[in-house]
Amino acid sequence: MIVVVNNSASQEQFDNLVSWIEAQDVKLHFSRGETHTVIGLVGDTTKIDTELLEGLDIVSQVTRVSDPFKNANRKFHPEDTVIEVGNTKIGGGHFALIAGPCSVESEEQIVAVAQAVKAAGATILRGGAFKPRTSPYDFQGLRAEGLALLLTAKKETGLPIITEIMDADHIPLFEDVDIIQVGARNMQNFELLKELGKTKKPILLKRGLANTLKEFLMSAEYVMSEGNENVILCERGIRTFETYTRNTLDISAVPMLKELSHLPVVVDPSHASGVSRLVKPLSLSATAVGADGLMIEVHNNPQYALCDGPQSLTPEQFEDTATAVKKVLAALR
Amino acid sequence: MIVVVNNSASQEQFDNLVSWIEAQDVKLHFSRGETHTVIGLVGDTTKIDTELLEGLDIVSQVTRVSDPFKNANRKFHPEDTVIEVGNTKIGGGHFALIAGPCSVESEEQIVAVAQAVKAAGATILRGGAFKPRTSPYDFQGLRAEGLALLLTAKKETGLPIITEIMDADHIPLFEDVDIIQVGARNMQNFELLKELGKTKKPILLKRGLANTLKEFLMSAEYVMSEGNENVILCERGIRTFETYTRNTLDISAVPMLKELSHLPVVVDPSHASGVSRLVKPLSLSATAVGADGLMIEVHNNPQYALCDGPQSLTPEQFEDTATAVKKVLAALR
Amino acid sequence: MIVVVNNSASQEQFDNLVSWIEAQDVKLHFSRGETHTVIGLVGDTTKIDTELLEGLDIVSQVTRVSDPFKNANRKFHPEDTVIEVGNTKIGGGHFALIAGPCSVESEEQIVAVAQAVKAAGATILRGGAFKPRTSPYDFQGLRAEGLALLLTAKKETGLPIITEIMDADHIPLFEDVDIIQVGARNMQNFELLKELGKTKKPILLKRGLANTLKEFLMSAEYVMSEGNENVILCERGIRTFETYTRNTLDISAVPMLKELSHLPVVVDPSHASGVSRLVKPLSLSATAVGADGLMIEVHNNPQYALCDGPQSLTPEQFEDTATAVKKVLAALR
Amino acid sequence: MIVVVNNSASQEQFDNLVSWIEAQDVKLHFSRGETHTVIGLVGDTTKIDTELLEGLDIVSQVTRVSDPFKNANRKFHPEDTVIEVGNTKIGGGHFALIAGPCSVESEEQIVAVAQAVKAAGATILRGGAFKPRTSPYDFQGLRAEGLALLLTAKKETGLPIITEIMDADHIPLFEDVDIIQVGARNMQNFELLKELGKTKKPILLKRGLANTLKEFLMSAEYVMSEGNENVILCERGIRTFETYTRNTLDISAVPMLKELSHLPVVVDPSHASGVSRLVKPLSLSATAVGADGLMIEVHNNPQYALCDGPQSLTPEQFEDTATAVKKVLAALR
Repeated sequence: MIVVVNNSASQEQFDNLVSWIEAQDVKLHFSRGETHTVIGLVGDTTKIDTELLEGLDIVSQVTRVSDPFKNANRKFHPEDTVIEVGNTKIGGGHFALIAGPCSVESEEQIVAVAQAVKAAGATILRGGAFKPRTSPYDFQGLRAEGLALLLTAKKETGLPIITEIMDADHIPLFEDVDIIQVGARNMQNFELLKELGKTKKPILLKRGLANTLKEFLMSAEYVMSEGNENVILCERGIRTFETYTRNTLDISAVPMLKELSHLPVVVDPSHASGVSRLVKPLSLSATAVGADGLMIEVHNNPQYALCDGPQSLTPEQFEDTATAVKKVLAALR
Repeated sequence: MIVVVNNSASQEQFDNLVSWIEAQDVKLHFSRGETHTVIGLVGDTTKIDTELLEGLDIVSQVTRVSDPFKNANRKFHPEDTVIEVGNTKIGGGHFALIAGPCSVESEEQIVAVAQAVKAAGATILRGGAFKPRTSPYDFQGLRAEGLALLLTAKKETGLPIITEIMDADHIPLFEDVDIIQVGARNMQNFELLKELGKTKKPILLKRGLANTLKEFLMSAEYVMSEGNENVILCERGIRTFETYTRNTLDISAVPMLKELSHLPVVVDPSHASGVSRLVKPLSLSATAVGADGLMIEVHNNPQYALCDGPQSLTPEQFEDTATAVKKVLAALR
Repeated sequence: MIVVVNNSASQEQFDNLVSWIEAQDVKLHFSRGETHTVIGLVGDTTKIDTELLEGLDIVSQVTRVSDPFKNANRKFHPEDTVIEVGNTKIGGGHFALIAGPCSVESEEQIVAVAQAVKAAGATILRGGAFKPRTSPYDFQGLRAEGLALLLTAKKETGLPIITEIMDADHIPLFEDVDIIQVGARNMQNFELLKELGKTKKPILLKRGLANTLKEFLMSAEYVMSEGNENVILCERGIRTFETYTRNTLDISAVPMLKELSHLPVVVDPSHASGVSRLVKPLSLSATAVGADGLMIEVHNNPQYALCDGPQSLTPEQFEDTATAVKKVLAALR
Repeated sequence: MIVVVNNSASQEQFDNLVSWIEAQDVKLHFSRGETHTVIGLVGDTTKIDTELLEGLDIVSQVTRVSDPFKNANRKFHPEDTVIEVGNTKIGGGHFALIAGPCSVESEEQIVAVAQAVKAAGATILRGGAFKPRTSPYDFQGLRAEGLALLLTAKKETGLPIITEIMDADHIPLFEDVDIIQVGARNMQNFELLKELGKTKKPILLKRGLANTLKEFLMSAEYVMSEGNENVILCERGIRTFETYTRNTLDISAVPMLKELSHLPVVVDPSHASGVSRLVKPLSLSATAVGADGLMIEVHNNPQYALCDGPQSLTPEQFEDTATAVKKVLAALR
């Protein structure tokens, strides 16, 4: 870490700062210039709060040389993390194809979709039971009943299931769920992350709409620092000025996250675009860029289209997409 | 609400859509063009899920004419909401000056700051007990102990207190808190909002870093739809590409929110800029634009500056700011 | 186009609006609701200025149903535009591999890079002569001399060349250039676009840092409306809050632009990321998503690395990338 | 400037870097840590291209301690720049009230608006002759004829005039214009900036839609480095995700720019919001935050409202705003 101090600081201010830093168990190097003095901090600076330093009038800049995340950091864990779910794996060369409806609506619906996506090559079933909606007047999901229907679909097809949690109090309900999803709006719900860190469940953590990669990895760190190393990162689009697509898929985040961290990275092209016509090209794009998997919305019944989002594929479209994804995977192997 | 349908839709698709809309208890008007047919929906469209409609292939656009928020909407509640806290009021011409430290650190600190800000004109004391921090390794606040110290400061000074909640399970701890704050990161923690809606406590809701005004008002609606009408909106800066300031204060949000809603709107210039030198000019700016109050970070002890954020004022700076704010308020009356 | 009028408008205001719209040579349909009247405009609305309508107090919303761009619009020109440059083509299934250094530095350098990228599969040579730099103190390019060196490299290798223009006065200098590039900062330099529209040269138009796809296509329209239909669109990253990459590659823009327009779309992964390590994965990603070509920065001489950007590949890295790109192209055929 | 080098660099790479830096006429300080070596550069680093350094594989970070702008920098020019135009001044405590129509439409219109805004307290007349429009099909301004009409209004009222330039070739036409405006879309049209730098005219430079304050000041530097020190900075809103307002007024930019630079800073509340109802509150806000002036759109004739933007005030609304602005100015003196 580098701290740049204005030479206009009084000797007393400077000495106070130096003693405070020394108390953090790091070594200091000084480089005095005409207008500024640069202090280099050597040692474990993970726990030094840069905001506090930046707040001092005499400090003009603070720059981290090393990353503030540790458990998630590839530097300290060079091999890819591989997460096992049922008899499928994610990461380290294992590609996950997660598919299913936005919301679980009925046993008939979820079982039919589960069978269709399994036939088309999906390895994990997704489906929403607890639904975070912008409006309190919109459908909030079948909640506990939806979880029960997902478990039925799991039994019928053998597919492991993933579904979203919205409150730490609900953790007991997720006992038979294979992967617990934390949605974008809860990426910095730190109390929830800590509680999930106390379980051993794989956690799929979605990137917040306006969160940097560093914040994203710090949220993974919240789960991991409590002892749960089974975190899957999910890029699902960020908020920008562009309005043709609902969000802007940050495709560069995939190779960047895989460089910074050993955790698997999957992409959700359905939420990233909000447009079903873009799901196939974005799936191919994410596969080619090096993602460890895809999470795709699929609905089964054209006449129910009104209740599926604008971003859902039919099972036929999903099969077509899955086939093309496999071609890209094969070409790059 | 206006739904624009492509004329390439089959008669059956078109009829299905029309019957679905009719089932929502609204009247329909049709206007048929060469390439598109425009359907006007008249009646209560609040509960119609626009995303579902947009998802249909045959629909090319959906536009809301009326707002999706009801309880928070000024159209249905033209007079300003005035919220009473202790013997002070917020809204409808009553200006609130909320001040205090980022974190409660000790009894000595919080009582001293409380006395200093009261003397300088503050009407409400703020102080963080539960602290949402990006890193799990940063100081997380004194939590329950911090709440107890705030209550001591309240008793000593008579100032009502406001502090942040991070989890619905903590609500019982907030019984003697006067205003419960929901932080920016939890603006769309819908489970928390619903639980707070079941209390009668005033809720200060901060705008999320990347949330639109519409989403902001929909989150207020979550609290209000459960029966709690005491919501204060707080603009605290949004995330943009600019990096000189931590966030970008969206000053236009204040008059826009006051036009859309009857709820009081306060501004937090400390978090909006992250730079203490900007707190005074931004406070004046927010006062002149028509805010119903300010929430300002103040620390008491220069030698503890390291533990206060870069954005805190000293009590003297706060007094200077408060004096200037009152001049602007008087000039515009 | 749909215009939503408040019913609070006086009869006179309403009649004035209606006569103004009728004067624009379009037909009107009315749909009167309780609080608003919806006017549907049928006919050629391309030349109606929506901002003027939105400015009226009595108008609460204006929505375009049809696009404001015409020449660039795929609806009026369903087949892909194919642009011929020398003996190579771009668009309609023809993939362009454009490569070369950020700046032309010397004859030795540009000829060596040109030979190297040609050997590795490049079909067009890029190189900067006029360089737009944020700082007036940074290297501004060799300007006219740089153009001359590029022409030498063209003669030596037979590769067509592309280079950036910064002012309409320089057009005569570009007579032997094959494709004229308009940089992101000049995307809305309308005087320049109009002058380029009067030439017959292929124009590669880069998307502005913060411009929407609609604005991007409107800028293409500026060139095309003057008679030059040879426009190539180039996505090169947009400005967002994320700072790990210099810009955020908007990969969804590629399929979206190709849906909206018949013009070829290429991707510049070098500027989009600003990080050479990301150029290969982003190139694969852009190929898989359906781009019509790539524009990649390549430098030839490691010891000159200081003068090449952080985003440049060596010829060996470029060859490796080109090989992988061809595998993805083959897999998806 | 601080350059952080990975210790994985070979001795040869490191030595090459060091000799390159030394050749830039700066002194070096070294601070060697376990994983990185920090090099401090002391001296005039204005002309060192940070992007080149960041591009090196062995460099992990480059941080400027001093600003890259010089002529615009308050550090080297502590007193406020005051710009004289006719018998009015801008900056250093002199507040400018610039008002007039978006477009010059006719002699009758521009003279009437000029007289009205003068009566209401305006000190400078604005009016568009060359209009940058997103669409080639929208009204492009009266161009040279518009300039002539502005000069008539200047003669009639004695008000100095400001109007926008779009191309360096037009400079001779602007000989009798008092202040030349560079629009947001041309903020990085460097060839235009350089040519304007060769004149002695005051230049009002608008911030680009997505440009940082640093880039904004570097564009001012382009003008100043050619010898023209008469630059006025204009904040006019930036592009964000929010859509209720056309742009987001970055009010914090005003005090920040005034801290970084000695140049006057004015605010354009009309373009910043795009909504006439917000012009008064935003004008008060900009005045309170410390701006050196305002630039406000005013149209004169309600029946011509269709041709004025949604953001224009009537002369009566302008007078009301000007009166309130003066009250805020007086309160803060």
